[in-house]
Amino acid sequence: MIRVGVAGATGYAGAELVRILAGHPEVKVTVLTSRQYAGVPFHRIYPSMSGMIEHECQLFEYDAVCDQADFVFTALPHKLPMEIVPELVARGKKVIDLSADFRFADPEKYESAYTNHTARDLLKRSVYGLSEVFSDQIRTADIIGNPGCYPTSVLLPLIPLVRAGMIDPGSIIADSKSGVSGAGRALSLTSLYCEVNESFKAYKVAGHRHKPEMEEVLTEMAGKPVNITFVPHLLPMNRGMESTIYAGLSKDFSDDAIYACMSEYYAGRRFIRISKTGTPPDTRNVRGTNCCDIGFVVDREKGRLILMSVIDNLVKGAAGQAVQNMNLMAGLDETLGLNLIPFPV
Amino acid sequence: MIRVGVAGATGYAGAELVRILAGHPEVKVTVLTSRQYAGVPFHRIYPSMSGMIEHECQLFEYDAVCDQADFVFTALPHKLPMEIVPELVARGKKVIDLSADFRFADPEKYESAYTNHTARDLLKRSVYGLSEVFSDQIRTADIIGNPGCYPTSVLLPLIPLVRAGMIDPGSIIADSKSGVSGAGRALSLTSLYCEVNESFKAYKVAGHRHKPEMEEVLTEMAGKPVNITFVPHLLPMNRGMESTIYAGLSKDFSDDAIYACMSEYYAGRRFIRISKTGTPPDTRNVRGTNCCDIGFVVDREKGRLILMSVIDNLVKGAAGQAVQNMNLMAGLDETLGLNLIPFPV
Amino acid sequence: MIRVGVAGATGYAGAELVRILAGHPEVKVTVLTSRQYAGVPFHRIYPSMSGMIEHECQLFEYDAVCDQADFVFTALPHKLPMEIVPELVARGKKVIDLSADFRFADPEKYESAYTNHTARDLLKRSVYGLSEVFSDQIRTADIIGNPGCYPTSVLLPLIPLVRAGMIDPGSIIADSKSGVSGAGRALSLTSLYCEVNESFKAYKVAGHRHKPEMEEVLTEMAGKPVNITFVPHLLPMNRGMESTIYAGLSKDFSDDAIYACMSEYYAGRRFIRISKTGTPPDTRNVRGTNCCDIGFVVDREKGRLILMSVIDNLVKGAAGQAVQNMNLMAGLDETLGLNLIPFPV
Amino acid sequence: MIRVGVAGATGYAGAELVRILAGHPEVKVTVLTSRQYAGVPFHRIYPSMSGMIEHECQLFEYDAVCDQADFVFTALPHKLPMEIVPELVARGKKVIDLSADFRFADPEKYESAYTNHTARDLLKRSVYGLSEVFSDQIRTADIIGNPGCYPTSVLLPLIPLVRAGMIDPGSIIADSKSGVSGAGRALSLTSLYCEVNESFKAYKVAGHRHKPEMEEVLTEMAGKPVNITFVPHLLPMNRGMESTIYAGLSKDFSDDAIYACMSEYYAGRRFIRISKTGTPPDTRNVRGTNCCDIGFVVDREKGRLILMSVIDNLVKGAAGQAVQNMNLMAGLDETLGLNLIPFPV
Repeated sequence: MIRVGVAGATGYAGAELVRILAGHPEVKVTVLTSRQYAGVPFHRIYPSMSGMIEHECQLFEYDAVCDQADFVFTALPHKLPMEIVPELVARGKKVIDLSADFRFADPEKYESAYTNHTARDLLKRSVYGLSEVFSDQIRTADIIGNPGCYPTSVLLPLIPLVRAGMIDPGSIIADSKSGVSGAGRALSLTSLYCEVNESFKAYKVAGHRHKPEMEEVLTEMAGKPVNITFVPHLLPMNRGMESTIYAGLSKDFSDDAIYACMSEYYAGRRFIRISKTGTPPDTRNVRGTNCCDIGFVVDREKGRLILMSVIDNLVKGAAGQAVQNMNLMAGLDETLGLNLIPFPV
Repeated sequence: MIRVGVAGATGYAGAELVRILAGHPEVKVTVLTSRQYAGVPFHRIYPSMSGMIEHECQLFEYDAVCDQADFVFTALPHKLPMEIVPELVARGKKVIDLSADFRFADPEKYESAYTNHTARDLLKRSVYGLSEVFSDQIRTADIIGNPGCYPTSVLLPLIPLVRAGMIDPGSIIADSKSGVSGAGRALSLTSLYCEVNESFKAYKVAGHRHKPEMEEVLTEMAGKPVNITFVPHLLPMNRGMESTIYAGLSKDFSDDAIYACMSEYYAGRRFIRISKTGTPPDTRNVRGTNCCDIGFVVDREKGRLILMSVIDNLVKGAAGQAVQNMNLMAGLDETLGLNLIPFPV
Repeated sequence: MIRVGVAGATGYAGAELVRILAGHPEVKVTVLTSRQYAGVPFHRIYPSMSGMIEHECQLFEYDAVCDQADFVFTALPHKLPMEIVPELVARGKKVIDLSADFRFADPEKYESAYTNHTARDLLKRSVYGLSEVFSDQIRTADIIGNPGCYPTSVLLPLIPLVRAGMIDPGSIIADSKSGVSGAGRALSLTSLYCEVNESFKAYKVAGHRHKPEMEEVLTEMAGKPVNITFVPHLLPMNRGMESTIYAGLSKDFSDDAIYACMSEYYAGRRFIRISKTGTPPDTRNVRGTNCCDIGFVVDREKGRLILMSVIDNLVKGAAGQAVQNMNLMAGLDETLGLNLIPFPV
Repeated sequence: MIRVGVAGATGYAGAELVRILAGHPEVKVTVLTSRQYAGVPFHRIYPSMSGMIEHECQLFEYDAVCDQADFVFTALPHKLPMEIVPELVARGKKVIDLSADFRFADPEKYESAYTNHTARDLLKRSVYGLSEVFSDQIRTADIIGNPGCYPTSVLLPLIPLVRAGMIDPGSIIADSKSGVSGAGRALSLTSLYCEVNESFKAYKVAGHRHKPEMEEVLTEMAGKPVNITFVPHLLPMNRGMESTIYAGLSKDFSDDAIYACMSEYYAGRRFIRISKTGTPPDTRNVRGTNCCDIGFVVDREKGRLILMSVIDNLVKGAAGQAVQNMNLMAGLDETLGLNLIPFPV
């Protein structure tokens, strides 16, 4: 059994980690930390877990965490992980960080989007945890920068095609839509029920922090600098993220060729489900699961490929992919504990 | 492994059975039937199940079903089960029927609420599948009339108290609220998104068919005729049912006595979670799970007990309880395959 | 034209007042106050009003408000109105207060439910603004305690029947359900989208502050002390409130008699729409309007009347009724500016 | 007073017409037709209108309609209007058709997207009812092809810029999202509450019938053939449509120049509200109103303009714009009866 701790267990991503880890056959959750709820039983904050999770939340302390856990998930606001991860790694722990702190190879890019980076040297050591793409590096890593939800939904369909040179990387536009849980459990006027319900709008147009994260990976895949246009929108629903991605085809590839490129790249990877029929994927088909469903249509008049992907922003977009990475790091089947069967409705 | 068939697999209750059975460690789903979708792969109707369920739906035929299945779940509109269940039982199958056809001991009551009953003699043999209440009879039954969702949510909190004579059975009022999935997948104006969203209303006031079902069980428990007032309402959400039940206390029992009565009756039953602190239960805490959460408050000025219960209408209110009954009938732990961990959000 | 000011214009009830007053043919809105948004144009906070409302929010100051307004609506948290209303009245203003501060005739009742009352003598002078019931007193009042949303929905159907002695006032149970806007625009975990969406639960069971407000009015109507059982619930929707009310009939009145009692009492009052056919009212039929729709069914087996009422909690439950009261006080037709035509969907 | 009839009054667009016309100071609604509900009072189908609309629905008959109405709105499925409009026009009626039947100048384009056109000669006479763009032609027209909801939301922001040559018309991509009411009141599995709620997906990718409608107008504005990529998506909400539109700038125009182009084109038009600050428009700010709110951001790295527009699909996208066109045709102020003040929440 792997002993696992979750730092920041009471936010939505942290609680989703607890949900998934509680059903993982090779995991024993040993420690849950929370600044705000130290001393409170976890199921008092999430009564849905009554009778399932008996842990009391505790303050983060190195000794307690390191004595009890082999793997530590840090589900904390960015800036906090870079303060604590160096010591965790120094003590031999494997760390999967769900913030942005360890996602960038280039500290300048992190700093221009976020803040001063205080653990720059660890960036060389950390691996970007897009599980299906960087599996080999993840298996041997001890720090994972778990991808953002938007980058996961945008990169998974694009990467095989960009690598294969089938699309013009300069032409990429990603129009993404996210459920509200992506904003977390913090009190904010814009997260109030009455402000979101029966509402839809874009936000942080062309300036969202996930854009440089996507560009860094796409640049690596394309072998040349890639800039994209990225517009996120807020959906009136709890979970679910859809990205519709527009890109010029580098030549007039058939639908079969496009399908083959993606399906071969992801051959054997159970969480990537690609439709060859042009059926647009629906967020509800992946809700609660670690799947990314992908569909595509070519607008032949314009030579433009339209990719559509859906994920559950809290699972493949956060906690689920984090557990998938843990499985890879621990030498387990990547799907272990993640065979989450979705609701029909 | 138990070989299981689902007749009527493409309605919401049937599909929820498939979801739950697909994760059951002792079950092999062998046959899914559907009149409307015969010949169509199940995952074409529910793409969420792609890669998880490979079955093709087929027309119901006795030989095919009986050759492949030991247990048959019938998730069909009422009237159909009483046509096919006699033959299934005659061929030695165990049947769990999710319609109303085998819920009533008294055929007159069934007929006044539904229609002519054509398998009256089987009613003596069938057992009402309220799992925690009739466990012993369920274990040895070969036909289960699986309870309605409203009766499940109303009966579970009431039964211990009615049996103990702690409440006046003539005073019971149940004000229930259900998510839309309870209406099933049939095309109906009243199930359209725009007609339900941002809407709330009562329906079938004091005349819902689930009322005699509740009264028959309460009458048995009280040892005297019980009539209740029952008003169902429609909630703008997919899953979830809440019942707020009002009843006069037969004398001035303390909160502790009330809690003790219920918690002792359900001792050791994992799916019944009773709050002793008066915290009202929330439907989202049981969504996707087989739990029934119960809370209560006494209005001391009026000597009136206020019970509140929540279930997921598709799980404890239908498919989950059906699987729990299968577990009991098969001599398995009743929770097997039902340790469904709910979403934090 | 009546010059009108709104104190506390940026909360949901205040903003709804602005919406309604902006379309009122005899009103000129002159001053909007807000502590939090002083100096900010109102349409910056509510961009929906761009091009419709040009006012800038200002801090509340007696001189500015009293110079510009004949009527002042106070849409402030309770406790604040009792601090400022005495001076407003002393300066000859007509005040309609949407808080609880001037709803109670008996200061003890206010104090047991809320807090110390510092303007007790004004309670004798203030009138409870249930427009259809206390019209005569409202016409000549200079302070209105505008009713709470729950009391409005519960009292309107009950009052005619209680006055007529047709129901046993000791038997009343009100099971109410409210949209989230009733909780206002304050930051609160329980108002976050993800906490409310796909959720339903009771709260403040039998202990909500609106209960004594209802009881004081019912006691007056019945001519003897009335206690009720009241359980509010939270609905996943923005606007809308439904109350299902259970009460024993004092004798076996016919449906016609019950309908006649209510329809005669409200004869000529356009905002009260009573169904004689037993059709349950739907919150969406009154959304955005000042209507209260009422339906009823008698459970003859139990001699129990089931009343159902729906209002828009922000309109008839707050701002709309406040404007109706202003109309009455100003000698205008009570429906002026309130002929709000609801959305079909 | 203008005497107005609505053919097809019980669909969502028809009922929305009734809502708006009922509040129009210069309109008398005289006749409502419905095939399905002939003989039924309109308020029986839409109880929200009880006490506001007393009409009974009747079968469509030329004499009855033409005797009672000067203007006829046809809110019928396409194909029906081209059967009845010729006779209505022959009898001297002004017709505003909400279907696609009279939107196209070129019958070939209509036929390739819809069906055989049986009133081709009237296409020369009909005017495309995009009110702010074709005001002059609308004023003198007797047949209006009222625009589709998607084309309205996409064309309004684009037209000034395309006319001015500021964007490359070959580069246009429109990613649109619509509330469910756009699908109408017909029974359809994909419109069921449980299928839409907590779901988001694209549909009819690059093949929606509104695409040629947009292209015909853009081609006229650009003075050269324009093809666009258009992807509609379904939002879990009743009303509201957002379009995010991507287009290459023809040169490096400043934000001020872009704002000036649009704001000058729409100078004095109250329903077009353009933000100069880059704030993305929100569907809830226009819900229930005839406004189109527009925002924009330039992605300078890519020389790409991002336009965002929101409308209420049933108002500016259907019934509201239809009434605006009636106002223009009748020589009234275009805003008459359309000063609909939106809900703050």
